[in-house]
Amino acid sequence: MHNQVTAHIITIGDEILYGQILDTNAQWMSQRLDEIGIKVTQRLTIGDVKSEILEAFAYSEKKADIVLITGGLGPTEDDLTKPCLAEYFGVDMETNQQALSEIADMFNRFKLELTPINRLQASLPTNCAMISNSLGTAPGMWFYENNTVFVSMPGVPFEMKEMVSAHILPKLRAQFSLPYIYHKVIRTIGIGESWLADKIKPWADALPKDISLAYLPSLGEVKLRLTISGKESNQEERVSNEIEKLKKYADKFIYGYDNDSIESVVGNMLAKTNKTLATAESCTGGYLAHMITSVPGSSAYFKGSVIAYSNDIKIDQLGVLPETLETYGAVSEETVKEMAEGIRKEFGTTYGMATSGIAGPDGGTPEKPVGTVWIALAGTDGTKTKLLSLAKDRLLNIQASAKATLAMAWQTFNQNS
Amino acid sequence: MHNQVTAHIITIGDEILYGQILDTNAQWMSQRLDEIGIKVTQRLTIGDVKSEILEAFAYSEKKADIVLITGGLGPTEDDLTKPCLAEYFGVDMETNQQALSEIADMFNRFKLELTPINRLQASLPTNCAMISNSLGTAPGMWFYENNTVFVSMPGVPFEMKEMVSAHILPKLRAQFSLPYIYHKVIRTIGIGESWLADKIKPWADALPKDISLAYLPSLGEVKLRLTISGKESNQEERVSNEIEKLKKYADKFIYGYDNDSIESVVGNMLAKTNKTLATAESCTGGYLAHMITSVPGSSAYFKGSVIAYSNDIKIDQLGVLPETLETYGAVSEETVKEMAEGIRKEFGTTYGMATSGIAGPDGGTPEKPVGTVWIALAGTDGTKTKLLSLAKDRLLNIQASAKATLAMAWQTFNQNS
Repeated sequence: MHNQVTAHIITIGDEILYGQILDTNAQWMSQRLDEIGIKVTQRLTIGDVKSEILEAFAYSEKKADIVLITGGLGPTEDDLTKPCLAEYFGVDMETNQQALSEIADMFNRFKLELTPINRLQASLPTNCAMISNSLGTAPGMWFYENNTVFVSMPGVPFEMKEMVSAHILPKLRAQFSLPYIYHKVIRTIGIGESWLADKIKPWADALPKDISLAYLPSLGEVKLRLTISGKESNQEERVSNEIEKLKKYADKFIYGYDNDSIESVVGNMLAKTNKTLATAESCTGGYLAHMITSVPGSSAYFKGSVIAYSNDIKIDQLGVLPETLETYGAVSEETVKEMAEGIRKEFGTTYGMATSGIAGPDGGTPEKPVGTVWIALAGTDGTKTKLLSLAKDRLLNIQASAKATLAMAWQTFNQNS
Repeated sequence: MHNQVTAHIITIGDEILYGQILDTNAQWMSQRLDEIGIKVTQRLTIGDVKSEILEAFAYSEKKADIVLITGGLGPTEDDLTKPCLAEYFGVDMETNQQALSEIADMFNRFKLELTPINRLQASLPTNCAMISNSLGTAPGMWFYENNTVFVSMPGVPFEMKEMVSAHILPKLRAQFSLPYIYHKVIRTIGIGESWLADKIKPWADALPKDISLAYLPSLGEVKLRLTISGKESNQEERVSNEIEKLKKYADKFIYGYDNDSIESVVGNMLAKTNKTLATAESCTGGYLAHMITSVPGSSAYFKGSVIAYSNDIKIDQLGVLPETLETYGAVSEETVKEMAEGIRKEFGTTYGMATSGIAGPDGGTPEKPVGTVWIALAGTDGTKTKLLSLAKDRLLNIQASAKATLAMAWQTFNQNS
C-alpha cells in the first residue's frame, strides 16, 4: 500500500487576501497535483507579513510532504518570500551564478539594461536548487529539508504554470512513489440534487468501498464524481462498469462526462446529424445564443438569432400574430410557441428555440410573477413548450432559462435518437 | 484608535481542494469585508475531513475575531460542516422551526414535495442563530462563542452572496466597532493602466497622505480606487474634491463610479434622451445583447438584435450586400458598417451596433488572424467603425469585443452631449 503523498499550497500576497485579485493559481496547481496522485490537503492564503509567512511554513511542514508556495518573489520591498525562506532554514542568501546568467540573457534578449534591483533577483538562499524561469526574471527554488519538499514560485500565472509543467511535476514524480488515481465526472441535468440522491441510492449504497462518490451541484445541473485510488493501476474499466449500472437509475438525466457542457453536447448532436438551429429570445436577451456560440465550431449548425425585446419585433421579425400577443400576452405558451416556429421558418433551420419570460426585478404581476418563463423548441415533429418558475435574480433567471432550453433540446434529441 | 477587527475565511470542500471548482466566494467575501474595514488575515481551504475541519475551527478561533465558513451544508452525507460545528461547540442538533417553515414555504412555492432529506436541512446546532437563505434550502448559522463570531454559509455563490449582503454584513457592523472607511471607485475605459498612470501622475503625486490610490485593471477597463480610513467620519466630500481635480487629467475616460457598468451607463444615456438601440452581432454571438439586457429596465430603449452567424442571415435579415461579403469578406469594415446600418433601419432604432470578427480558436488567416474584430455604431450622424486586434482566447475575445462596442457608443454619446 502506498502512503498518500500530501501537499499544501501557500499563496502569499495582500492583493489576493483583500480580494483585488482572484486566485486562479491555486486551482490550477490543485488540478495538476491531483492528476499525478498527490492529495492537496490544505490551501492557505496569507498576507505580506513575515511572522505569518514563517508560521505558515512551520504549520505546513508538519502537515504535508510537499509545500508549494507562490507569490512574494518580486524585486520590491514588500516581497518577503525569499528572506523568509532563508530565515526559516537558517541559511544565508548569495548570488546564484546560473540564475544571474539566465536573468542577464533575458535582459539581453529584450535589449534592456540589467539594473541592480534585477541583479538582486539572482540572490537565493544557499540551500536551494534553482528552478529556471523561462518566462520571467524571478527564479523558482526547490528545497528538501526535514523530509519535506518546499517549492517557491512566482505568482505570475503564466510563469508559474510553465515552471510547474517543465520542472516541478517531473521532480515530484522522481522524488515520490505516487499512487494510481482516477476521477470520472458524470454530468446530469433536469433533476435536483436531493431527488437524484434518492433515485440512485441503491446504486450509491452498493458502490465498491474503494470508489468514492461526490455530488457537485451547480446552476441547473448536478455533477457526480467517482474517484478511485490505490496501488493497482488501470481501474478505468471498473469505474465504467459502475457508470453502466448507474444508467439503470439515471440514464435520462446523464448528458455527458468530465468537461462536457450542455451547449457542446447539444451542438455535437446537431453537427453529427447535419441539423441546424436558430433561437428567438425575449427574456434571455442573447444569453442563449451566447451559450451556443461559446462552443468553437458552432457556426457549423447555428445560423443565428432574433432577440425580440419589443412586441413590434416579435410581430415583424418572427411572425407572431398581434392577436396572440393581445389575447395571451408576450409571456405565454402561445407566444413562445409562435416565436420558436417563426424563427425556424424565417431562418430555415431544423430547430427553433424560443424564450419569453419576466427576468425581473420588475415587471411581475400576481398572475405572472418575476421568474415566470416560457420556453419552446420547434422541430420536425411539432413544438414542445415548458413553463419555468424561477427566482427573483435577473441574471440567474436569464442563465437558468437558457440552460433549461438547452436541457429541453437535449432531452428531445436523446429520446429521438 | 480602533482595534483592527480581523477575519479568517474557511472554505470547505474536496471539489475546491482538488481544483474542480474555482473558489470565487473567498474573493467576493474578502472584498465585502475590506469595504467595511474588517481585515482578512488568512484564508484556508480544507477538504471534507472531520479532523481537518475541527482543527481549522480551533486555529482560526485563536487568530481572528470573525471566522466565515462556506461549503459543506448540502443535504448529502459528504457534507460535514453542521455536525462538525455541533461537535466543536459541544451542543446537540435539533430541528429549527423557523428554518423548517422557510424550507417548507420554498418547496410549496415551487409545488415540490418536501422529502425527509430536505427536512434534515432544518436541523441545526442548538447554540446558533439561524440565518435565512432566501434563495436556497440550506440555512446559514451565526455563532458567538469565546469572543469569536463564527458564520457558516452554503457554498453556492448566489445563496452566499444574498445571505452576506442581507444579513451578515449588518450583523457584523452591529457587533463590532469598525473604523470609518470610505472607498470610491472611479471607472475608466478606453485607456490602458500604464498610460493612465502617466497621464494622472501629477494628480496622484499630490493626493493627501490619508487618501490612498489603487489601480484595479480588468477586461477592457481600469478602475481607480480611492480609500480613506481613520477615526474621523464624513470624509466623502474630501474624496469628491480629489475626483474633481482628477477630471482635469482624465475626464474623457471616466464613464462612471462604484458599481456602474458601461452597459448601464450607455443604457441610462439612451433612456434619458429617448433614444433606442438594436444590435447586429456576428462574432459576439449574442453576448453584446446579453450585456445590454442584463440591465433591469433595458426594454425601454433596447428593441432587439439579429445574430447573424451565417452570411445568408447577414444578407436576408440585415440587408448586407452579397457583393460586399464577396469582395471584402464577413470580417471587414465594409460588412460591419452595412450590418450596423441594416439593423438600425430594419428595427427602426436611433442607433445600430454591429460586430464581426474571428473569435477563434480556428478560422484565422495570415491577413486576418484570430482576434481580428471590426465593430461599428450607426446613428443619426453616420457610422463609426473601429478595428480591434485581440488575443487568442475565444471567450475573452467575445467579451472584449462587446465591451469595446459599448465603449465606442459611450465615447460618441459623451462627445455629443
